[in-house]
Amino acid sequence: MTEIGIIAVGGYNEMGRNMTAIRVNEDIIIIDMGIRLDRVQIHEDVDTDRMHSLELIEMGAIPDDTIMNEVNGNVRAIVCTHGHLDHIGAIPKLAHRYAAPIIATPYTTALIKHQIDSERKFGVKNNIVALKAGETLEITKDITIEFINTQHSIIDTVFVAIHTPSGAVVYACDFKFDRTPTLGEVPDFDRLKELGKEGVIALITESTNAGRNGKTPSELIAHMMLKDVLLGTEESAVGMIVTTFASHIARVNSIVQFAQEMGRIPVLLGRSMERYVGTAYQLGYIDLPENVEIYGSRRDIDNALKKIMEAGKDKYLPVMTGHQGEPGAVLGRIANGETPFKVETGDRIIFSANVIPNPMTQANRYALETKLKMKGARIYDNVHVSGHAYREDHWELLRMLKPEHVIPAHGTIQMHSEYIQMAEDAGYSLGDTLHLLRNGEELYIEED
Amino acid sequence: MTEIGIIAVGGYNEMGRNMTAIRVNEDIIIIDMGIRLDRVQIHEDVDTDRMHSLELIEMGAIPDDTIMNEVNGNVRAIVCTHGHLDHIGAIPKLAHRYAAPIIATPYTTALIKHQIDSERKFGVKNNIVALKAGETLEITKDITIEFINTQHSIIDTVFVAIHTPSGAVVYACDFKFDRTPTLGEVPDFDRLKELGKEGVIALITESTNAGRNGKTPSELIAHMMLKDVLLGTEESAVGMIVTTFASHIARVNSIVQFAQEMGRIPVLLGRSMERYVGTAYQLGYIDLPENVEIYGSRRDIDNALKKIMEAGKDKYLPVMTGHQGEPGAVLGRIANGETPFKVETGDRIIFSANVIPNPMTQANRYALETKLKMKGARIYDNVHVSGHAYREDHWELLRMLKPEHVIPAHGTIQMHSEYIQMAEDAGYSLGDTLHLLRNGEELYIEED
Amino acid sequence: MTEIGIIAVGGYNEMGRNMTAIRVNEDIIIIDMGIRLDRVQIHEDVDTDRMHSLELIEMGAIPDDTIMNEVNGNVRAIVCTHGHLDHIGAIPKLAHRYAAPIIATPYTTALIKHQIDSERKFGVKNNIVALKAGETLEITKDITIEFINTQHSIIDTVFVAIHTPSGAVVYACDFKFDRTPTLGEVPDFDRLKELGKEGVIALITESTNAGRNGKTPSELIAHMMLKDVLLGTEESAVGMIVTTFASHIARVNSIVQFAQEMGRIPVLLGRSMERYVGTAYQLGYIDLPENVEIYGSRRDIDNALKKIMEAGKDKYLPVMTGHQGEPGAVLGRIANGETPFKVETGDRIIFSANVIPNPMTQANRYALETKLKMKGARIYDNVHVSGHAYREDHWELLRMLKPEHVIPAHGTIQMHSEYIQMAEDAGYSLGDTLHLLRNGEELYIEED
Amino acid sequence: MTEIGIIAVGGYNEMGRNMTAIRVNEDIIIIDMGIRLDRVQIHEDVDTDRMHSLELIEMGAIPDDTIMNEVNGNVRAIVCTHGHLDHIGAIPKLAHRYAAPIIATPYTTALIKHQIDSERKFGVKNNIVALKAGETLEITKDITIEFINTQHSIIDTVFVAIHTPSGAVVYACDFKFDRTPTLGEVPDFDRLKELGKEGVIALITESTNAGRNGKTPSELIAHMMLKDVLLGTEESAVGMIVTTFASHIARVNSIVQFAQEMGRIPVLLGRSMERYVGTAYQLGYIDLPENVEIYGSRRDIDNALKKIMEAGKDKYLPVMTGHQGEPGAVLGRIANGETPFKVETGDRIIFSANVIPNPMTQANRYALETKLKMKGARIYDNVHVSGHAYREDHWELLRMLKPEHVIPAHGTIQMHSEYIQMAEDAGYSLGDTLHLLRNGEELYIEED
Repeated sequence: MTEIGIIAVGGYNEMGRNMTAIRVNEDIIIIDMGIRLDRVQIHEDVDTDRMHSLELIEMGAIPDDTIMNEVNGNVRAIVCTHGHLDHIGAIPKLAHRYAAPIIATPYTTALIKHQIDSERKFGVKNNIVALKAGETLEITKDITIEFINTQHSIIDTVFVAIHTPSGAVVYACDFKFDRTPTLGEVPDFDRLKELGKEGVIALITESTNAGRNGKTPSELIAHMMLKDVLLGTEESAVGMIVTTFASHIARVNSIVQFAQEMGRIPVLLGRSMERYVGTAYQLGYIDLPENVEIYGSRRDIDNALKKIMEAGKDKYLPVMTGHQGEPGAVLGRIANGETPFKVETGDRIIFSANVIPNPMTQANRYALETKLKMKGARIYDNVHVSGHAYREDHWELLRMLKPEHVIPAHGTIQMHSEYIQMAEDAGYSLGDTLHLLRNGEELYIEED
Repeated sequence: MTEIGIIAVGGYNEMGRNMTAIRVNEDIIIIDMGIRLDRVQIHEDVDTDRMHSLELIEMGAIPDDTIMNEVNGNVRAIVCTHGHLDHIGAIPKLAHRYAAPIIATPYTTALIKHQIDSERKFGVKNNIVALKAGETLEITKDITIEFINTQHSIIDTVFVAIHTPSGAVVYACDFKFDRTPTLGEVPDFDRLKELGKEGVIALITESTNAGRNGKTPSELIAHMMLKDVLLGTEESAVGMIVTTFASHIARVNSIVQFAQEMGRIPVLLGRSMERYVGTAYQLGYIDLPENVEIYGSRRDIDNALKKIMEAGKDKYLPVMTGHQGEPGAVLGRIANGETPFKVETGDRIIFSANVIPNPMTQANRYALETKLKMKGARIYDNVHVSGHAYREDHWELLRMLKPEHVIPAHGTIQMHSEYIQMAEDAGYSLGDTLHLLRNGEELYIEED
Repeated sequence: MTEIGIIAVGGYNEMGRNMTAIRVNEDIIIIDMGIRLDRVQIHEDVDTDRMHSLELIEMGAIPDDTIMNEVNGNVRAIVCTHGHLDHIGAIPKLAHRYAAPIIATPYTTALIKHQIDSERKFGVKNNIVALKAGETLEITKDITIEFINTQHSIIDTVFVAIHTPSGAVVYACDFKFDRTPTLGEVPDFDRLKELGKEGVIALITESTNAGRNGKTPSELIAHMMLKDVLLGTEESAVGMIVTTFASHIARVNSIVQFAQEMGRIPVLLGRSMERYVGTAYQLGYIDLPENVEIYGSRRDIDNALKKIMEAGKDKYLPVMTGHQGEPGAVLGRIANGETPFKVETGDRIIFSANVIPNPMTQANRYALETKLKMKGARIYDNVHVSGHAYREDHWELLRMLKPEHVIPAHGTIQMHSEYIQMAEDAGYSLGDTLHLLRNGEELYIEED
Repeated sequence: MTEIGIIAVGGYNEMGRNMTAIRVNEDIIIIDMGIRLDRVQIHEDVDTDRMHSLELIEMGAIPDDTIMNEVNGNVRAIVCTHGHLDHIGAIPKLAHRYAAPIIATPYTTALIKHQIDSERKFGVKNNIVALKAGETLEITKDITIEFINTQHSIIDTVFVAIHTPSGAVVYACDFKFDRTPTLGEVPDFDRLKELGKEGVIALITESTNAGRNGKTPSELIAHMMLKDVLLGTEESAVGMIVTTFASHIARVNSIVQFAQEMGRIPVLLGRSMERYVGTAYQLGYIDLPENVEIYGSRRDIDNALKKIMEAGKDKYLPVMTGHQGEPGAVLGRIANGETPFKVETGDRIIFSANVIPNPMTQANRYALETKLKMKGARIYDNVHVSGHAYREDHWELLRMLKPEHVIPAHGTIQMHSEYIQMAEDAGYSLGDTLHLLRNGEELYIEED
């Protein structure tokens, strides 16, 4: 008999500070350790790099893992499913408390190392182990971890199956079922169906977009909309700027391709652009054309912008950070007139990103757009598709895996409510096979 | 010297009953004569086919063309830019008042004839003249009409240029700048730029989507999203129904193609599906595969649905009317359980349409979806893109044509307000070169 | 030891068809049997009076009480807390299945009798027992029912306390904490606090407005806003119509008073106006001035409207049904021009009601307002306050009663989610002392 | 013959920087000189006190009065209708350019003097003349100014009538028709009707709330809702804080009264609270009880908060600035834990204010509320009514004054659109008697 505990550490009451612990008898696997940035944003002048974990816990910024003291077992591994900050951002603050290796896909491990390097308060010495999608790793005699390929808005994202003597626990958070991805492989549907046949004890899955009907549009849709915005115009000589998520490697890759087709030189600007894209390039996830330029430091960026102004804006396609109006990002500095780049009437600012639905971000974005428009910029917003599964993608996942128990995660109670209604349609019953967990709670499942 | 009058007959205070008259000295060209269906919908048991025009005018359903009595001139032609009801629906009620031919593209003329045939109150005897995109027609010694190819959510849509001795008046209502259409040609950008060089006195253009940022996604985007919904699934054997606009020939054409790729037989159901698609097929706008089936009468439809149930839902892809929850449409009857088609858990209803933003429609749609969901249907909504230009498409049109005067049409004052702000950005000045007209008003322009 | 079962029969997944069963060992008290009208509205031509309960259950219109077969116990009483249809509307369809009396306050019992009288399918023979707020009734040796006075948008609304050997179960659904009501008494806060001291096992309470911050405005606020709309004008001689909930006796009472102050004759129109207000008058809940006129039949109403037109609109204040745009109601018939009352420019239509947030109602209301505005009416909307407790009222109730267990009811899972977050702030813990029930589920509580 | 020019200087394209110039032949009266704070807010670290007017004009923060150079005439007077910053805030930056006195009601003149005193860039030496509501002042032989009493969310607000030989021009911006004000007199309806009879050439009026149906609720409604929040509770001993607009003297006055009734000492905190309320008290607009305490400096405020904590929160009712989440305001500092006042579970924060509908403000407010809730505060939001006329109030004003021409002001084009539709209902015609002006435009009216 196996006793499974599903411990909701963080991300069950909110979007952001994700952390789940799976207990198999007395062995524990932690999955994800994320940070909730909007809880940091509401404070002025906060330097998280130097803050203590307890302070960040009190702010609601990182998972309150002090509850792990109450859990009866030993942590054997920390697994991260992909490299977004809401999944790895608390590693520098919390991982050192556990004598366990950190396991992630190669790209994710590289990003985790960057996180640890920039930490100023704690020293994190855990082993970091790279495991590829499709591979398995034995953690204890009874527990094996398997990574299953999926798609998301960052490369090298995986589902995790924790194999126990009584079946698997599957953690499927932050994914999309993209059958025409522009980078990476299609999710491993065959393996998912196989798992469903082998027997899944529990599925922990994100409720983020469970309230949106239908299925998530493929990244190919964003790719083609973006291509149309960049190339489909009668004003092809105007200044154009694209801003997108630095971590969205597939998107940046598309933009670089389009620059080639436009006969413009792609120039990637911003420290995070340098880090995420540079890492992806070094690890071989993407190719870059010879003429691409990448600048991370403020000085290099401003020099590049000066060069663009001198040579002619129509020769370059600057790709930059700043789409959420982040103070200090390249686009924000351009809007403030703090760089050599001058926005003129008819120049286009293309936001290949959504606006994160948070009042702080909305205000930053509003200020940014207002300043850009006052200078004459034309705004192309939301040339983007989501990286999170919609309701019917969840429906299909549920019917492939056929888990005994389902637990929505990664969202507010309102988001979980949407998931619950879908799962009820699929035959699950709340309080019996379908569970609404709150941060700090442990669900016990006994299996023969 | 030429005196131009732009007479706002209908569609300047609202969406729907579009009608504009262009007076060139004492000769008048009327453009579009549409019906506003939501003004009909708020009444129960109204049969418009038998109603008098004055009654429909009082209801606000058709343009109040009694104001034409005050205009000093004679109507020389009635031009329709495409075949949607908000552009041709009032022809049977109003056209007979004018001793002038009706001029439209071939597909549009066919639809106008259908309209006139179903009229029960008035006899409309006006000549109907087909003019193709790219062609011109001399109306009087001083006036020539030119049709310029564009794209919209119905085939054979055109811009109209009315050439006068002092320059052209361009009417560009209901269009999208689609550079990757799935049917028909790309809009004739070269001709538009040429017109801009020749000199445009005035541009009358729709403000419908002037408030939406960026550019309208191409029909290719809808095509690919729809393909992904239909083919990109792990549950390919379930029942699937697609509902879309019968008049959206490009969309229906895509769906029929996808049915082939799915190995299913496409079955088009509904009287308007039969009329619009049948007409497009007969006129050679589309090809149809041999196995396609089309049924218009209730009896034939129900027989077809019976056959589908018997042979297996996975053998067919029914395509039908009813996406707005219209009472009596095929999908509504299925939802009510009034046909042999039984919706079962997991069957998919794919709405390749938006919800028309009107409370009556929203209620019908809500009732429809509620009933379908109670039977176990999975809903894929809004697998669709708009057929109306967004703000930056308007920006480009304005900069290509460089008209002296601009008049937003086809919308509420709030929609015009959005257009006005964009046109001000482009250098136009309200009350001087940019005009906010209200139904019943005439704008006078004197040209040398 | 007492075993308590809280059985969520209806109204836990939706707004409307409320029904809860409280099991005390093997004795059961049913509370409320309501109907969900919007599940009826989505169907055309449905006559609920003649329908079988099983059909209505399948439509989701009345509670699925077939689950009561699985509950181990006998129903000893059916209690209704007030006279709204979502609390008593299923009595004619379901009550006859139980050999138990129906217990309610006097006004509520009168309305229940009306319901039973208009039923055409079933004969309901249960005893109907009137119990006043503040009174108690012994049901079995171990169970006593107590009615505690509260306020709501209908008179004679109560909380129910079910006293058991181990403490009370309190049912507090549909209430507001109004300290300045215009009719009836202030809620019995002293008794609630006393109950809190005596010990409350469980509280079942509505989550309807738990998502709205602060406290519900008093009925006095609606009273004064309405007074200002009616009397505070420089155009006191125009036609005025007030439409409100016929069951909102306090509101109608205010309007009648204001008519007196305006020197106009109040005329109450509509069958439900006649029933609800007439009953309240006959039972002595309100006084009516001598000059008030009340008409229920279509013929009488039209005669009254004719008289108003002849004598002068400024002599009368018609008060009528139809604020939700219900087809056939007086106001709708006026908007359609089907009555002698002619709406002229400047006449005022005062909606002393909210719009019920349902697409069917919104559409009806839109059609109604559109027609009225086209005739020149000026609209005063939402001269109204809610009858349901807001978040902080719930906070206070929770802290007065200090129940061991809390169960939100009367709402969707999204509404319950709002309640849950508030209750967590107050120290409750989901899955332990705070419970999210779904229709058909039973919660077991064991008490010493 | 009189030529009237209505010059839209600022506030016609936006909310905020209001300024209108009325030219009567060659004499000009300027009305209002306001600042648009949200255009300042989008920039970090801006100190408007030290900025030059041209810089502020470029930011869109103050009216672009450089267009006045093009107007043919001399400015004879600057009139301010009330003391809000969007009406007087640009006085320190612009008034010195005109050799003309500043005329306002007594309270407004006091606030204008405060503004001028805090200016660090320009010296403003214009005469400041106090004129009471109901009084007139001859400006030139042909022009007399009249102040007519009205109500708004600040005391001593007036309409301005500019009497010319051909009739009056009436400026009615920022007003409400409050017939039960809690401070000051009811608007002078008799005089408005008289003006209507005498003949009004043009009415310039705010469109701010023209889109809201019905009439603005009276301040008495806010008064009573607030009273109910403060006194109508079963938890009367908890900590309570009220935050409201410091300039809303009537509201502050009510709160001070309620503190007395609660047996708590009212403590007014914040520099602007000290200035606005202190000035109102000194000029005799309000009485204050003996026990009231007012503190403006940070040090005094913190001492007061310390005293409150020591003596017991239930002894005091602190009333403070900060409801919009303004950084540095008292409430914000409390939320940050920067003062001696500790928020505990169950303490109430009562926002007797709306949230200004601007993303910057919404973000500040969100951060504020989030921090307060994390400390356990209970939020009562929007215990408030608007100070701006709703649609039907405008309808009545229009029908009282019967102006020949109407010009909506103080709003975006969308807000003006709402006003236009109402005015069309009242018989006005756009482009003829109803005018949509844009910043920088002059409307010419010739009168016999």
